[in-house]
Amino acid sequence: MVPSQLIRRKRDGETLDPAALAELLRAFDEGGVADYQMAAFLMAVHFRGLEATELRVLVETILDSGGRVRFDGGPHVDKHSTGGVGDTVSLVLAPLVASLGVPVPMMSGRGLGHSGGTVDKLESIPGMRLDLSLAEFRDQVDELGLALISQTPEIAPLDGKLYALRDVTATVESVPLIAASIMSKKVAEGIDGLVLDVKAGNGAFLPEEDRALELARTMIGVGEAQGLRVVALLTAMDRPLGRAVGNALEVVEAVETLQGGGPADLREVTLALAAEMLVLGGAASDLASARATAAAALDSGQGLELFRRVVEVQGGDPRALDEPSRLPSAPVRRMAVAERSGRVTAFETRAIGEAAVALGAGRAALGAEIDPRVGLIMQVGPGDVVDEGDPLAEVHAADEAAAEQAARSLVSAVTVGDDEPGFRPLISHRI
Amino acid sequence: MVPSQLIRRKRDGETLDPAALAELLRAFDEGGVADYQMAAFLMAVHFRGLEATELRVLVETILDSGGRVRFDGGPHVDKHSTGGVGDTVSLVLAPLVASLGVPVPMMSGRGLGHSGGTVDKLESIPGMRLDLSLAEFRDQVDELGLALISQTPEIAPLDGKLYALRDVTATVESVPLIAASIMSKKVAEGIDGLVLDVKAGNGAFLPEEDRALELARTMIGVGEAQGLRVVALLTAMDRPLGRAVGNALEVVEAVETLQGGGPADLREVTLALAAEMLVLGGAASDLASARATAAAALDSGQGLELFRRVVEVQGGDPRALDEPSRLPSAPVRRMAVAERSGRVTAFETRAIGEAAVALGAGRAALGAEIDPRVGLIMQVGPGDVVDEGDPLAEVHAADEAAAEQAARSLVSAVTVGDDEPGFRPLISHRI
Repeated sequence: MVPSQLIRRKRDGETLDPAALAELLRAFDEGGVADYQMAAFLMAVHFRGLEATELRVLVETILDSGGRVRFDGGPHVDKHSTGGVGDTVSLVLAPLVASLGVPVPMMSGRGLGHSGGTVDKLESIPGMRLDLSLAEFRDQVDELGLALISQTPEIAPLDGKLYALRDVTATVESVPLIAASIMSKKVAEGIDGLVLDVKAGNGAFLPEEDRALELARTMIGVGEAQGLRVVALLTAMDRPLGRAVGNALEVVEAVETLQGGGPADLREVTLALAAEMLVLGGAASDLASARATAAAALDSGQGLELFRRVVEVQGGDPRALDEPSRLPSAPVRRMAVAERSGRVTAFETRAIGEAAVALGAGRAALGAEIDPRVGLIMQVGPGDVVDEGDPLAEVHAADEAAAEQAARSLVSAVTVGDDEPGFRPLISHRI
Repeated sequence: MVPSQLIRRKRDGETLDPAALAELLRAFDEGGVADYQMAAFLMAVHFRGLEATELRVLVETILDSGGRVRFDGGPHVDKHSTGGVGDTVSLVLAPLVASLGVPVPMMSGRGLGHSGGTVDKLESIPGMRLDLSLAEFRDQVDELGLALISQTPEIAPLDGKLYALRDVTATVESVPLIAASIMSKKVAEGIDGLVLDVKAGNGAFLPEEDRALELARTMIGVGEAQGLRVVALLTAMDRPLGRAVGNALEVVEAVETLQGGGPADLREVTLALAAEMLVLGGAASDLASARATAAAALDSGQGLELFRRVVEVQGGDPRALDEPSRLPSAPVRRMAVAERSGRVTAFETRAIGEAAVALGAGRAALGAEIDPRVGLIMQVGPGDVVDEGDPLAEVHAADEAAAEQAARSLVSAVTVGDDEPGFRPLISHRI
């Protein structure tokens, strides 16, 4: 295996020999292939893509680089979102589905770029610990049917090395590399089924629908090659999902939704994903009955009960779920208001996410501290009619200056006009 | 300047800001940009190319990274070949043109891959020293009108760093990167005019004619942007040029050609390039008279006289030029013969070059020793009619085993058949 020859073949669009590709990746993991060779290889992959066999080799080499959880008993099912703004779904979905008898071993990420991360959101609950070991993770899933943890270096360390290199060499936005990174970690989690929430629209990492569909299909192919049952829904990210954008704010919204309330769009996406998970998990025979069961469990608060229990077991204060005053809250609130009358015809969703990051809800640089208190609560949704001076979003900020800046960003990120709004359907594809 | 942002812009086909690109390149030269980032950038350039302004920034940043020769007096002219098999031209052309009053400051490379290098060929002359300093180089050109040296680290050190990285990351075969590498060194040499011998055909680094033409036009653009007058000829490399392939063997062939003899194709290409150089150098007013002057100088041995003098001044034994027995010679000779009767319809020219490398005439790995004695003397040219058993090439080898292997390679690299031969015109384009 000569690294420069493999790079050249990929550069020229040839298919790589599986054994040689695996050797290249293992040698990189062990330090025998230089960062600069892997960087050139990844850029060639960005342009040329990966064949199914190559992708399988990449996923399996990542998998083999670390540990792997194996569960006994019936099917374990997880959900993965490709990331967005105000995407509170996991906090509602995981306890809901687990409370209905399908074990959910959920390993989540932190916020990335303009998008929030489930781990950051859960950590706004005082005391909540997400850095369980793989052994603790497995035991808790066996006992409670649900564990919520952050990614651990025990799993897929090669993915961490590749990602760190991609991050500084502009090779992040590659469909096969994204698919391999996500799916190798999900396979390592020990699940049998996976539901993918693939976002499309201007707040998604891959905004164009065709690229989002390509990513969905690629991830499904990768998962199926590893023996998983995978379903993907393409959901709208041309607006924030729900109303809350920010960590503690989204916990509050998740609790409302687990009590049968919450924003209609968040409930809708959650129920659609829950129905898929219940069918994959064998707890329902069809999507319609699964959805009815999940809706009833939201209205009864059954999922919230399990969420409280998991928070407590993982060191968090369960009272924070029922008394929002026990969650961190921001000292400054300010309303961003419409500068003219009209209809809400578009959101610059990425800019809204970036405004939340600027407030401190996300990370401008890797490893930075986040502020769990801050964020936004959207006051308008797609197509809403507003008068000049009507509220667009409530800013929760650490200080007046940050609030002022965020409010300005929000006003320009919400388009109020006279055109016909052209929003995506909330759920556009099921694959 | 954030390296990953520049990589991303190039990756996405955007044009880079000149100041930011220059900063990226300088920072790489100084160690402030990592090899892995430059490797990803070079691969993105491989796919996206460089705009004229970007290319100019690359050339000028390479130039500024090292020293630069400046000559007084009339125009100084050099020639560069993109490399081939048996390309003996420089050894004839440089003394020929310099003997006619146009100073030739010639800085050459070593053999690369399957192609020979002028420096290696000249070093087969006993005692010949090519590692002159830039000051010695300038003085000798002023005094004799000709100096033949190898590339020095004083010139364009950034190019050396970039090339070392390209070599191990499969980013060598990029037209703008090749053009920048060649032309920055030629501009640094202090010349006013340059004649390019761009090879096309299956022994060239860029075999396809359109790519060779693209390289020619790109190099011309780069040279003109730096104030050089540049002419390019596209010449045939779908066969070895001349008959000799190998270092001492090519010196013998060069001397024969400087005495008015030698292979017709070598003489023809040399005269065409010489005519261009004489016109660029102001020693002739038109190509026809320049060519006649050059032909007369070959026949009179005027160029050989200057070659002897330069060899002597640079420490070589000038008697080796007149008495081939003073050059290193191989102990084993073996004839590769035709296995059937027919016409020579094609050469696998790269394979012929590789056979010479395998004999020891070139380097299988960077820095390896070469054997000046070994090589091949082709016994057939394009379209020649042969009978079974007729000689195809004479192998000069260090031992029987190497001779045997080379002879086998030669037999399969020379196609003898019944088809109509489809060779390129010796000189197909003038640009």
